[in-house]
Amino acid sequence: MDLLPILVMLLVLFLLARIGNRLFERFGMPGLIGEIIIGIAIANVVIDGTSLLTILDIDIPAPGEESTNINYSVMYTFAELGVIFLLFSVGLETKVGTLLSVGKTAMFVAGLGVIVPFVLGFAFIMAQEGEFNHAMFLGAAMVATSVGITARVIKDMHLMEKRESRIIVGAAVIDDVLGMVVLAIVKGIADSGDAGLEILDLIIIVVEAVIFVMAVIAFAKYCSPKVYRFKMRYYESYTKRTGKVPRGYNDFIIGIIVCFALAAFAEYIGLAAIIGAFLAGMVFADHAWESGMDKKVDTLTTFMISFFFLNVGLQVDLSAFTTTDIMIDVVIVILLALVSKYIGCGLGARLGEKMDKDSCQIIGVGMIPRGEVGIIVASIGLHIMVNGEPALSQGLYSVIVIMAVATTIIAPPVLSKLFRRKYKPEYTATADDLT
Amino acid sequence: MDLLPILVMLLVLFLLARIGNRLFERFGMPGLIGEIIIGIAIANVVIDGTSLLTILDIDIPAPGEESTNINYSVMYTFAELGVIFLLFSVGLETKVGTLLSVGKTAMFVAGLGVIVPFVLGFAFIMAQEGEFNHAMFLGAAMVATSVGITARVIKDMHLMEKRESRIIVGAAVIDDVLGMVVLAIVKGIADSGDAGLEILDLIIIVVEAVIFVMAVIAFAKYCSPKVYRFKMRYYESYTKRTGKVPRGYNDFIIGIIVCFALAAFAEYIGLAAIIGAFLAGMVFADHAWESGMDKKVDTLTTFMISFFFLNVGLQVDLSAFTTTDIMIDVVIVILLALVSKYIGCGLGARLGEKMDKDSCQIIGVGMIPRGEVGIIVASIGLHIMVNGEPALSQGLYSVIVIMAVATTIIAPPVLSKLFRRKYKPEYTATADDLT
Repeated sequence: MDLLPILVMLLVLFLLARIGNRLFERFGMPGLIGEIIIGIAIANVVIDGTSLLTILDIDIPAPGEESTNINYSVMYTFAELGVIFLLFSVGLETKVGTLLSVGKTAMFVAGLGVIVPFVLGFAFIMAQEGEFNHAMFLGAAMVATSVGITARVIKDMHLMEKRESRIIVGAAVIDDVLGMVVLAIVKGIADSGDAGLEILDLIIIVVEAVIFVMAVIAFAKYCSPKVYRFKMRYYESYTKRTGKVPRGYNDFIIGIIVCFALAAFAEYIGLAAIIGAFLAGMVFADHAWESGMDKKVDTLTTFMISFFFLNVGLQVDLSAFTTTDIMIDVVIVILLALVSKYIGCGLGARLGEKMDKDSCQIIGVGMIPRGEVGIIVASIGLHIMVNGEPALSQGLYSVIVIMAVATTIIAPPVLSKLFRRKYKPEYTATADDLT
Repeated sequence: MDLLPILVMLLVLFLLARIGNRLFERFGMPGLIGEIIIGIAIANVVIDGTSLLTILDIDIPAPGEESTNINYSVMYTFAELGVIFLLFSVGLETKVGTLLSVGKTAMFVAGLGVIVPFVLGFAFIMAQEGEFNHAMFLGAAMVATSVGITARVIKDMHLMEKRESRIIVGAAVIDDVLGMVVLAIVKGIADSGDAGLEILDLIIIVVEAVIFVMAVIAFAKYCSPKVYRFKMRYYESYTKRTGKVPRGYNDFIIGIIVCFALAAFAEYIGLAAIIGAFLAGMVFADHAWESGMDKKVDTLTTFMISFFFLNVGLQVDLSAFTTTDIMIDVVIVILLALVSKYIGCGLGARLGEKMDKDSCQIIGVGMIPRGEVGIIVASIGLHIMVNGEPALSQGLYSVIVIMAVATTIIAPPVLSKLFRRKYKPEYTATADDLT
């Protein structure tokens, strides 16, 4: 195997992403937007018939397709592990008690944050072109919040312990379960007429998902403290017996294994891998700082997360936007995506626990980014055939991709402004920051 | 793209490698041997016609071939980055002054550590089968020390600051340059008759390599302190001017970029990537602890290095060893590999600075592991055609692979025993250890 092309690709992408990050930070914007825009530029700037992708031998697969390109696969793996580690570290900062204490509000936020976007998205397409399947898939793509983007903003601002942050994270977990339900229903309706079987399937996957989430939360609440006490007792008795500190198991290694296991399992049952990673983090949340596990996971995230935001940008194909019709669609869909989550989730926060306007705004904006999840939903729609035609049109697919990326770019600066207004600058950036 | 198979593969391999590591640690052996043996087992255990490699969809490419298998490529990237970060962190612990202070001895160690193994390996094949090209490639494969293995033992024992460790690391850098020269000569002779051109090529690559190494060392010695002082002055004036700490550049990010750049450049001019990574580390060695860069690089290493040792094991195909003839060859070549480095490098240490017997033994044993470098040399031999036949036979290739792995397995326990004898237990393991 030849290491050089892989190494050069990682170097060039990492360097460009970091330059984008720094430039945007310089102008007071969240650095991740710079990374996304660098990604868009890399995917779309062609000089003399060659793009940087060709030079670096990166071949982005068509939506929903498997990649056979080594360099893209390696980059993609880094991107996904980056966001998995990011959510793992968010989990490490989320004690199960605090998550449960925001449970009711999170449910309102997630629930209305699913219903309002779906209805608005569905209604828009029905009114505009009247194609039922297209309308359903656009609705489903509007539902999925990508918590990775908000998580990074919150982590960079060191505001993880604020109640609004807890609610956003809790709502994101519920949102992912609900989003899965919506997608399953939409797929089921588009796929075939055998509704009986579909409903059984649907119930099974929902029950699986709920049991999984509940089981991990229960483990974090009841078993984690016991395991910890057992370990401590063993260490003490070992030291008493031998006069030495036990070599012991490296908590960080155990953490990675549990994180990967739950991420893979979540993905396997149809949830997002990052939800599994978040839950895995919660299992260790009580004592993560003792072994420095949290800092170590942050280090892994720092190294890999830029590839994630870069990859979000790489999905954007600007050449799809040539007609004014499609430009108008893009603008409307983006507006609907912004407004629907902002109102739905903000309202949820108000109904859930009568939060004040500032907090409702923070939560509404924090739930806006759709990121990669919306793109995945859209690519599924592109691959389901209904009467010989895909359930989603190529044009709408491009619109959804732009919507997903636009919400991801628009939300972070607003969110950090709202946070800063509510929680005055109580924080000074250090070289330890992720960005 | 589908994340699940990649995630499952990383999880299973990481888990198995760590179990192997722990088992061997338990019995007082260096954990990396457990990881290599797990790799050998994964590659060779077949039950009912299926191996774990098939289940995980890992397809190991033939020697010297490019891989088209996504999972193997991802694993390979992690393996290589693991050893790159390991050597980067060794560099971070190596101040340029201390390296230069062992320069003379390191040259003796490297020089004799190249000559003795080459001559013994060459002589053995000439005596046994008389095939000139085979003899040259076996000699060349015997030359290459893989410093990653020894580096991990030394780091795990926290003995990086000992003089023997410095000499081993310094000698490894010189060894790599000399190994490149030997390989170039061997390739040149096997390749063609146009000796004039070959010699010019040879001179160019050697000069390139020497200039590269010298230039980075000079930068670390003269420019690094200046850059650091400039940065500090800027920070001070910024704080004075604004009353705030500058957000500044994250040293860890800069470190990764420089590490990747020098690793890629080293690989490009024909040196090993790890040599570039080591030199990159040295550039930051004076102040790495201030920003915690050293700990962060250790974290990346911990996550990835197990894949490296696993991958060393994966290269072993035990099915090649069916005849007693080849078994005898294996035993003799392993013995020659052990003895030649032990005597050559030990003698070098004695001639260089009259070190005592214990130190000479440490250095002799520390230079024994051939690891992946020997395998790479052998796979090059397999691909150069001389009069329609490969310059190295398939049988000898298998012998070299076993030799490379065997030296990697045999040296670490002896080395840690020798170190422990000389430097009484002044160290207690902590959860911060790499293993």
